[in-house]
Amino acid sequence: MSLLHPDRLFATDPGTRAIARRLFDSIADLPILSPHGHTSAQWFAENQPFPNPAALFLQPDHYLFRMLYSQGISLDAIGILPRPPKTGTSRKPPSPSSEPAPESEAITYADPREVWRLFAANYHLFRGTPSRIWLDYAFSELFQLGEAGRLSAKTADHYYDTISAALQTPEFLPRALYARFHIEVLATTDDPSASLTHHQALASDPSWHGRIIPTFRPDPVLDPDHEHFTHSLHKLGELTREDTHTWKGYLNALRKRRLFFKANGATATDHGHPTAHTADLTPEEAGRLFTNIIGIHPRHQSTTPKEHDLFRAHMLTEMARMSLEDGLVMQLHCGAFRNHNRVVYKKYGSDKGADIPQPTDYVHALRPVLSRYGNEPDLRIIVFTLDESAYSRELAPLAGHYPALKLGPPWWFHDSPEGMLRYRECVTETAGFYNSVGFNDDTRAFFSIPGRHDTARRMDATYLARLVAEHRLDEDEAFELMQDLTYNFANKAYRL
Amino acid sequence: MSLLHPDRLFATDPGTRAIARRLFDSIADLPILSPHGHTSAQWFAENQPFPNPAALFLQPDHYLFRMLYSQGISLDAIGILPRPPKTGTSRKPPSPSSEPAPESEAITYADPREVWRLFAANYHLFRGTPSRIWLDYAFSELFQLGEAGRLSAKTADHYYDTISAALQTPEFLPRALYARFHIEVLATTDDPSASLTHHQALASDPSWHGRIIPTFRPDPVLDPDHEHFTHSLHKLGELTREDTHTWKGYLNALRKRRLFFKANGATATDHGHPTAHTADLTPEEAGRLFTNIIGIHPRHQSTTPKEHDLFRAHMLTEMARMSLEDGLVMQLHCGAFRNHNRVVYKKYGSDKGADIPQPTDYVHALRPVLSRYGNEPDLRIIVFTLDESAYSRELAPLAGHYPALKLGPPWWFHDSPEGMLRYRECVTETAGFYNSVGFNDDTRAFFSIPGRHDTARRMDATYLARLVAEHRLDEDEAFELMQDLTYNFANKAYRL
Amino acid sequence: MSLLHPDRLFATDPGTRAIARRLFDSIADLPILSPHGHTSAQWFAENQPFPNPAALFLQPDHYLFRMLYSQGISLDAIGILPRPPKTGTSRKPPSPSSEPAPESEAITYADPREVWRLFAANYHLFRGTPSRIWLDYAFSELFQLGEAGRLSAKTADHYYDTISAALQTPEFLPRALYARFHIEVLATTDDPSASLTHHQALASDPSWHGRIIPTFRPDPVLDPDHEHFTHSLHKLGELTREDTHTWKGYLNALRKRRLFFKANGATATDHGHPTAHTADLTPEEAGRLFTNIIGIHPRHQSTTPKEHDLFRAHMLTEMARMSLEDGLVMQLHCGAFRNHNRVVYKKYGSDKGADIPQPTDYVHALRPVLSRYGNEPDLRIIVFTLDESAYSRELAPLAGHYPALKLGPPWWFHDSPEGMLRYRECVTETAGFYNSVGFNDDTRAFFSIPGRHDTARRMDATYLARLVAEHRLDEDEAFELMQDLTYNFANKAYRL
Repeated sequence: MSLLHPDRLFATDPGTRAIARRLFDSIADLPILSPHGHTSAQWFAENQPFPNPAALFLQPDHYLFRMLYSQGISLDAIGILPRPPKTGTSRKPPSPSSEPAPESEAITYADPREVWRLFAANYHLFRGTPSRIWLDYAFSELFQLGEAGRLSAKTADHYYDTISAALQTPEFLPRALYARFHIEVLATTDDPSASLTHHQALASDPSWHGRIIPTFRPDPVLDPDHEHFTHSLHKLGELTREDTHTWKGYLNALRKRRLFFKANGATATDHGHPTAHTADLTPEEAGRLFTNIIGIHPRHQSTTPKEHDLFRAHMLTEMARMSLEDGLVMQLHCGAFRNHNRVVYKKYGSDKGADIPQPTDYVHALRPVLSRYGNEPDLRIIVFTLDESAYSRELAPLAGHYPALKLGPPWWFHDSPEGMLRYRECVTETAGFYNSVGFNDDTRAFFSIPGRHDTARRMDATYLARLVAEHRLDEDEAFELMQDLTYNFANKAYRL
Repeated sequence: MSLLHPDRLFATDPGTRAIARRLFDSIADLPILSPHGHTSAQWFAENQPFPNPAALFLQPDHYLFRMLYSQGISLDAIGILPRPPKTGTSRKPPSPSSEPAPESEAITYADPREVWRLFAANYHLFRGTPSRIWLDYAFSELFQLGEAGRLSAKTADHYYDTISAALQTPEFLPRALYARFHIEVLATTDDPSASLTHHQALASDPSWHGRIIPTFRPDPVLDPDHEHFTHSLHKLGELTREDTHTWKGYLNALRKRRLFFKANGATATDHGHPTAHTADLTPEEAGRLFTNIIGIHPRHQSTTPKEHDLFRAHMLTEMARMSLEDGLVMQLHCGAFRNHNRVVYKKYGSDKGADIPQPTDYVHALRPVLSRYGNEPDLRIIVFTLDESAYSRELAPLAGHYPALKLGPPWWFHDSPEGMLRYRECVTETAGFYNSVGFNDDTRAFFSIPGRHDTARRMDATYLARLVAEHRLDEDEAFELMQDLTYNFANKAYRL
Repeated sequence: MSLLHPDRLFATDPGTRAIARRLFDSIADLPILSPHGHTSAQWFAENQPFPNPAALFLQPDHYLFRMLYSQGISLDAIGILPRPPKTGTSRKPPSPSSEPAPESEAITYADPREVWRLFAANYHLFRGTPSRIWLDYAFSELFQLGEAGRLSAKTADHYYDTISAALQTPEFLPRALYARFHIEVLATTDDPSASLTHHQALASDPSWHGRIIPTFRPDPVLDPDHEHFTHSLHKLGELTREDTHTWKGYLNALRKRRLFFKANGATATDHGHPTAHTADLTPEEAGRLFTNIIGIHPRHQSTTPKEHDLFRAHMLTEMARMSLEDGLVMQLHCGAFRNHNRVVYKKYGSDKGADIPQPTDYVHALRPVLSRYGNEPDLRIIVFTLDESAYSRELAPLAGHYPALKLGPPWWFHDSPEGMLRYRECVTETAGFYNSVGFNDDTRAFFSIPGRHDTARRMDATYLARLVAEHRLDEDEAFELMQDLTYNFANKAYRL
């Protein structure tokens, strides 16, 4: 018995469902390409067992604990730790990986089994959400928990014990799972100063046959409002032996780090700005702005939020320029209002489920970089949005014109069955399929990767099946597109 | 014969429809909870017959007469009366109930039967609208008019006579209908200075077994732009024996009126601001702003629209603070541009079908109040929107995180089959079902209440049936949710 | 064999599909009304053969070449010609027709067959787009190319030869096609200074039985930012013998040209402004603004973009005033950011697939003109949008109230199966069917007209069929509406 029905997510009309099933079956065995995500190379380099079920599934997954929190369950009860007290400017940046932050004296850990029980007793909260689909996939397909019935207060301990036991077996070590998940490429997202030692260790390990590649995410050194900007700039200088307090040295340092990432397998950069603003300053203007920002940081006494925004905006054009030189694909993840909840941010820090999308303009915001480089067929800028109203109004029309622009898949809150349908329905008629780039799982939840790709593939099959059933597409074309959406587009777009 | 098909509004796919039917049948007999609306307690206190069909169905229902007006039919011809000429500052505020305004000499009433015939001859205009569904429900289920065929020029008189005759029978008196509609709780929306005598009369009437509760809607005393602000503030002071021209006295007066409402059964407040702006001023700032606004009112010479907006914004945070004290649930109905049509407003006044939704920001607007009180699990703020683009972008993400925030059902123009589907499809995947609060009929059209709840229940059944048919939800879960959406969520959210 | 399935575009559920088929069959033979579009009267006046397949299908159709361009194919390779070098102020404005611009010495034409092969080899890019549907309709129904299979690299030459040969036959001359397409009225869109000689020639030609009517599109003389504003204003003065450099003479000239268009068959005006802004200045204010703009043009030294916007905004109110006088229907096509791509604009000029929709406000923007004239039942303002988020939020509520306002059909990027469904689903419940105006093909691609109307009719049948199958509409009503949507609404709205 399984928690999963073989026809899940397919349209209900029997004729359309039959087409969807055929389309899905034709690609079910294709390997997974994961060109953007937040897993850790360290897991595979060290190949240690994953921790307990609560630490594995719940605590690193903001989709899950934000829902529990919204229903009045405290983060403490979930075992989300308050961040350690600030100790001046020497404070260590938070670990980018999903491991728990270093213990602080004031904190008592919640018992993992108790946390799991709390989660299980509230599993009904996830009805109708994609998290439920991904979790059931993992429980059922990876841990064979289908016989036990759904996760609930009643089945909590059985689930906990089964998962805990499995995690201690060789079959559940990171490398074994990588193979079992049939992953071909897995991209991580990395600090611009990251040493990439784990990526390097893997690359030189003859016993490892996978491919884990880094992604250059320079936000900490491009964003003057980033809480580690000063520190990161300093570190960038050290690593590259450039004077990152001059405009020229700063650009050189970025260029060098990009090449370092590229040499370690990276094919892309990623930029997580609050807006899609771009700007195209003259070198003089840009240099002067940089100097003003640097000169007075970290007191922020003279430069304004508007100048910081302009700097971030201009730096995207610099990044596009460097992408033309080094061939790295450029990803823009725009539009999140980060750390919306002041209370939660102050106590627990970032990534606590309190990032909220905001209306995002693309038509004016992207014009500077597109006017400069949008006509370059060798440049690739992949844009993501959290503002679905921009799909048919701005993003599909832009991607259906500019050679350099491609549309990333539905992102974050919209990475869901309905979100995927809305995306295809709003984007395809204007931008076609061929200006999209396949699926991104974009997750730090390693165990959800197969379930996420399964969902995306099924929704693509559902959408294509509807086009076929409505005689808007021939069936042979749908089979070809099914391969493209599953494998070829990501492979090509990310230059894998 | 009925105007209503038993499978109306269910999905067309036979398999899905069968599930929807089972789900709907499981809750068809549950009582109606109506926690937000605009009916009049007076109807039930006095239990007098409702007037003629035109006055009952058409003249109080801006959904209906706005459509006729849009097709070139004058409001005069519909029997909508121009408002009486202004007679200085002593002018009586308009009656909040749906009774016709007091007759003025210059006005000749349209003959109700003629008005009805005009409506009937234009009934085709409502094809594809929810009004048509609600009206057919009332005609068919309450007045057994199904045999006569649809309302039309041909059937107009038969409808008129049948309804008129029925309204004179005991079965159509307000209290009999309350029972027949199977209503358990019916909330009205009331002026902050309302005496609530009808609510009190009902509460002390041993022959009355229903529950009509008031809702505290303080817009006239929170909004400096309200046309009766000065008058209302004065009245508030009289009623509470507080000096409402000092900041402290003003807050005390509000506190007292809230408790008065609570003592008379209220469980909620309601706020109908043009935007969702909130602010969190210091007591000193707030007091100073209040004094400035009061000091120069009603000439508005020195305070600006921006200051008025800031005052309204801050008062929502004050209301949240008081809600934490007294437990009243807080409803925000944001985003209507009221009285868009200057000509109609000048001649006929408010609520004449000329309120138009506008783009509404929530992510920045709600941050002040949410930063202050959004993490309080004992506070409940229910937000409604007229801007559907905010569902998946802002409202579901906010409600899926903040413990204090819940999402109201689709409102006003969106309280319709397609509107309800869009709501569920855009909201559920991020906020789940459990951050929504069940249905509001939000109507002053008493006879439409059963039809509106019937529509909402059918659309919930349709949505849940699709999730089941697509194997995204187990059927036992859908049955449980069907009960929740119909009864439990409203019961809990509104603390009934 | 056909490229087209008889059930194409109908819903997949067999019951609903059967209803859609009946609805569609009931109107399949109705003539085409095309009240807004961009074909050329010259074609029919001169009745010369259309050129080669590339020049016929691809080069004038920005839907097509923008998609090829987005995939890295240069406009030169498609045979899109760079615009001739500027030669001072005497530069001739671009021809509004689809004929190639006058040859310049520096340009080498691409070989039409090579262009066609390139297009054919990339025909897969149009999968899932409406262009594919329209093209297949033309290939299959007009040129009987179904037997050959889809357009592709393999079939490119066969298609080219078949189409080329057909175009030389009498059956493919413009007038023969007009009759074959069963067109009853075809509206062109014309410069305010157009001589309308071709319209006149047709009107006085006893051998011509069609009806080609002009539309007054005064953007070049209403928009100070138009590149030919000065030139156009001068020409307007010459044609009308008015001093168009005085406010009074300018208005008189506009009035005269409107009457000239009306005398030549026009029933409508059209306005393609970047926003929906309207304003209602006093005559003094308007006159002063006009004088300021005129006085310093074309150097633009003193008047600001904001003043130009205000002028455009006010001129819409002047146009509404004149429409009340002369009865011309007023069309507003708002919200395109024209020539977004600076590089393409500089080299190739306008209409090169680089116009991008932008967020568009209607609720505030339209208030001035609606406050002035929105209550006039004899005025007709038809509004179009590129911002779908405004459908349910602003446009349907406005059109469901103001007698003068009607909603144009889904426009441009949204003139597609999904776009049409979204339009009906978002608009109908608030504005009903009767505040919409039927279909516009809005095309310069004459051969796509039957396919576009076929698509629109099928989508209307699909939407109505769903309402019937869900018992939201009786079937007799759907048949009546099907006639209305296909023929009556356009006929009435455009006063044909």
